[in-house]
Amino acid sequence: LHRALSGDVAFLLHRIFMRSISVLGSDKQITKWIPLASQYQLIGSYAQTELGHGTYLQGLETTAVFDITTQEFILNTPKISAMKWWPGDMGRSATHTVVFAQLYVQGKCYGVHPFIVQIRSLQDHSLCPGITAGDIGPKMNFEHIDNGYLMMQNVRVPRENMLNKFCEVQPDGTYVRRGSQKINYFTMTTVRISLISDEVLIPLMKACTIAIRYSVVRRQSKLKPGEEEAKILDYQTQQEKLLPQLAAAYAFHFINDYLQELFDRGYKKIQKKNFDTLPELHAFSSGFKAMVTQHCTSAVEICLRACGGHGYSLLSGLPSLYTKILASCIYEGENTILLLQTARFLIKCFMAASAGQSVPPSVTYLAAVKPGKCPAKNKLDFLSPDIYTEAYQHMAVRLISSTAAKLQDLIQSGVKKHDAWNQCTVQLAQAAKAHCHYITVKNFAETVEKLETKAGIQKIMKHLCDLFALHGIFSNSGVFLHDGYISGAQMDLVTASYLDLLAVIRKDAVPLVDAFDFTDKSLNSALGSYDGQVYHRLYEWAQKSPTNKQMSPAYERYLKPLLHNTPSKL
Amino acid sequence: LHRALSGDVAFLLHRIFMRSISVLGSDKQITKWIPLASQYQLIGSYAQTELGHGTYLQGLETTAVFDITTQEFILNTPKISAMKWWPGDMGRSATHTVVFAQLYVQGKCYGVHPFIVQIRSLQDHSLCPGITAGDIGPKMNFEHIDNGYLMMQNVRVPRENMLNKFCEVQPDGTYVRRGSQKINYFTMTTVRISLISDEVLIPLMKACTIAIRYSVVRRQSKLKPGEEEAKILDYQTQQEKLLPQLAAAYAFHFINDYLQELFDRGYKKIQKKNFDTLPELHAFSSGFKAMVTQHCTSAVEICLRACGGHGYSLLSGLPSLYTKILASCIYEGENTILLLQTARFLIKCFMAASAGQSVPPSVTYLAAVKPGKCPAKNKLDFLSPDIYTEAYQHMAVRLISSTAAKLQDLIQSGVKKHDAWNQCTVQLAQAAKAHCHYITVKNFAETVEKLETKAGIQKIMKHLCDLFALHGIFSNSGVFLHDGYISGAQMDLVTASYLDLLAVIRKDAVPLVDAFDFTDKSLNSALGSYDGQVYHRLYEWAQKSPTNKQMSPAYERYLKPLLHNTPSKL
Repeated sequence: LHRALSGDVAFLLHRIFMRSISVLGSDKQITKWIPLASQYQLIGSYAQTELGHGTYLQGLETTAVFDITTQEFILNTPKISAMKWWPGDMGRSATHTVVFAQLYVQGKCYGVHPFIVQIRSLQDHSLCPGITAGDIGPKMNFEHIDNGYLMMQNVRVPRENMLNKFCEVQPDGTYVRRGSQKINYFTMTTVRISLISDEVLIPLMKACTIAIRYSVVRRQSKLKPGEEEAKILDYQTQQEKLLPQLAAAYAFHFINDYLQELFDRGYKKIQKKNFDTLPELHAFSSGFKAMVTQHCTSAVEICLRACGGHGYSLLSGLPSLYTKILASCIYEGENTILLLQTARFLIKCFMAASAGQSVPPSVTYLAAVKPGKCPAKNKLDFLSPDIYTEAYQHMAVRLISSTAAKLQDLIQSGVKKHDAWNQCTVQLAQAAKAHCHYITVKNFAETVEKLETKAGIQKIMKHLCDLFALHGIFSNSGVFLHDGYISGAQMDLVTASYLDLLAVIRKDAVPLVDAFDFTDKSLNSALGSYDGQVYHRLYEWAQKSPTNKQMSPAYERYLKPLLHNTPSKL
Repeated sequence: LHRALSGDVAFLLHRIFMRSISVLGSDKQITKWIPLASQYQLIGSYAQTELGHGTYLQGLETTAVFDITTQEFILNTPKISAMKWWPGDMGRSATHTVVFAQLYVQGKCYGVHPFIVQIRSLQDHSLCPGITAGDIGPKMNFEHIDNGYLMMQNVRVPRENMLNKFCEVQPDGTYVRRGSQKINYFTMTTVRISLISDEVLIPLMKACTIAIRYSVVRRQSKLKPGEEEAKILDYQTQQEKLLPQLAAAYAFHFINDYLQELFDRGYKKIQKKNFDTLPELHAFSSGFKAMVTQHCTSAVEICLRACGGHGYSLLSGLPSLYTKILASCIYEGENTILLLQTARFLIKCFMAASAGQSVPPSVTYLAAVKPGKCPAKNKLDFLSPDIYTEAYQHMAVRLISSTAAKLQDLIQSGVKKHDAWNQCTVQLAQAAKAHCHYITVKNFAETVEKLETKAGIQKIMKHLCDLFALHGIFSNSGVFLHDGYISGAQMDLVTASYLDLLAVIRKDAVPLVDAFDFTDKSLNSALGSYDGQVYHRLYEWAQKSPTNKQMSPAYERYLKPLLHNTPSKL
């Protein structure tokens, strides 16, 4: 159900509320709150972002002052820019929320901490004393989610409501930390990884399904004189729009597995209060969230535009997929900021690796800088995963090392550290993307290799892997040509191989989108949620005026078969 | 008013209806119809696209059969895919439309021709006999426009209703052509040029205005330790998002003047029945429509995302700018198809120029293939328009000539012409874009040179011109590096010069957006339509529920000053 609806349901933040408690709460807190939340005896939200601060969490202005006499925290919104702004499900639904606030004990500020705060009555759902809350207004999508604002005036919660697995205020006001201060942001790390599969990958799969199926039914213009008009998927330009997006959907499906594994390993350690993997997890979850959301957003836009006017009609389902997925580039960490977090980690690892120190296994490649040139001699060589993976690795190392060098040069020439950093940020973001792109290609190639027992699947996955890799080189050719690692003549071979692959994959394209089984049950219901969405829009719209209803027959007779063809008609 | 509202009004197609008659109608037809239309005694539409055919006009299925006995044309929609689909203002508003239909005289088909058809009564606005029409349903934007469908069953119009400046069916059934058959598509050529200024450039200017003004008020995180949080426009990454879009707005403003001049010169000749410039006008209007709409659509998306969550709120005005401008990539010619039209012209000109034949002045550069290398030696050299214009020219010639060579190689190796063309289309589209990019850079540089009497303006326009050119090289570095015209070391100089420029332009950014005077009256009302739009959205949304109204104070007190700051607060 969740795969089919992917985000088109309310109470998404309820899950994040629960995750915060599971990750940051003590066993006692988990025992108290999780059963209540699981049984929907309360509805949770997650109140971090404020009107004045999203990215810069240290700048949050909401305060939580410990009152030793009553053993309570007193929460306040000291000014309007401190108002919580955006939390999902808060405008009218949530009864409770996790509020991030600056903790003060005996006049001393201990930084941002999470507090469970009840905001609405469990009897009549009215706002609790001291609470002002409501909806923040219309957005580009998510009409069904009541993103809200929240202001607090002397709202008191018991001492036990600060999530205290990793830090605690004791009854006498003593502040105790167990582990890294950064653990408070760990909910976001977990959310960034889980949103890839839940909120980003599935919309891309749906968009590919709609656009590719449309392209084998829609005919337009003649490819060969005297013949019937051609299916638009038989045009090279249409293949070049859609098939790389299909390949990307698989690439990100596999990188999601990779991240999940990395996260599970790291989280086991964190539960044992070993925080060593925290920087790596933070860097990877940030960079991949940014790369994948950016790529998938562009991909959905390409799918929409590839369907022409019919794609622009709400009835295709594509516009709402786009306006929703776009938000993923902003929420849970704005992408540029996230890439710079990854870049900071990479630069640090690069310096450490250069100095011979040990670095996490995922970035040991940074130590292995080989000058060399790409050894490919003909276009078939570029279908070798070793050849292209090596090219991506070389490119990532070059971008990271050259930016590290620029940074050092600036600092050595007397520019202050923070100014130097700012002057390198465009290139740092590029370097972080390059790293994520490399890992994605490498992981795709390794995954394909492991499929060897399933020959039919391996063959077509190999084509998609090649396509994903070569599309990346073709469309970012500059970074590969820059130092001559790939020559101009070799780039022509890349282009030839890439364009050849499009024609090869074209004949498997529809089975490949049919494999995105949104229900885990049957191929035919893959478009079930899409159909439902279209009918919903059509119904809503038809209600507006009686004449609007006239259009329905046209939809039934022509548009529906055009947009919702069954796999049998290829 | 039109600049301020840009598209947010109804009856846009009425203008295209009038333009069709002015361009394609005889003097007699103009005398009859234009006064009626000017005084809104009828409301016109333009019915070209059908459910089954948009791009491939020759494939339109609507028929107009000449009945010699009654001196009428009989119009029919022979099947559901022939139903007109998308015409603006047709769902409920239009009383008349220009229908494009296959002309049949005495059993012979003469191809697609335009006919004036009345579809609704001028008395009670009911549908005329034989007409079925209505609204096509909800779209991604344009809620105020009733895009419609139209089916005709034996609808008769008098012989005089075929627009007959360039071709006519005489009473005895003789078909007479005066000039090129392609002139019937000329309305689209004029629309493609005029939409650049009316529907594409102004939304980009508005998006730049909103995003850049926001970025000098919004503060987030610290650039220097111990200081106040920084304006986000002081971050290099934010500059790199927004300032190239600002430069593009100026670049396209100037290319619009260039196209307007080219068009005016050509149109004067066409009115004298000299059709020599038609291919060039068609190629230029197609390619620039595609390049400018694509670039502006991406630019508006960048502006939206650069404002983070506040950009995603409908109250910023950015989401509706985006969902509207996106359509411009599809309507009046899908962009990929248009680029291939331009490419066909360029390949033809390149072959002609190579054979020593004369070609239109705008493409004589294709004959001047110089191998050479870029002579730039330091980063300041890349601020020389000669250096970068030459680089763009070299790159355009290389892409066009290498694609022409691939095409010829394929044909000589026995591949059929149409297959060979299809196998080159990805590269052909790229070559067409390169041509348009080159002309845009060249035209910007020449325009700046002519500003020499206005030194202050010239200086800042020069910066923007440099930024536009270097941003293009930086973000498409592969095509410049490919044959070594620009070396890797020179690309580093480009990057350095480009990043330096961002900091230089940053201090002039707000005055530059203020110069987009949407009312031609005052700077402060530049955001008038934006404010109006925001209030409209907020009002609509507040109507939905009484609790929605609670948010208004937050908007008034915080969001409004944040999003709508006055130029004084920089």
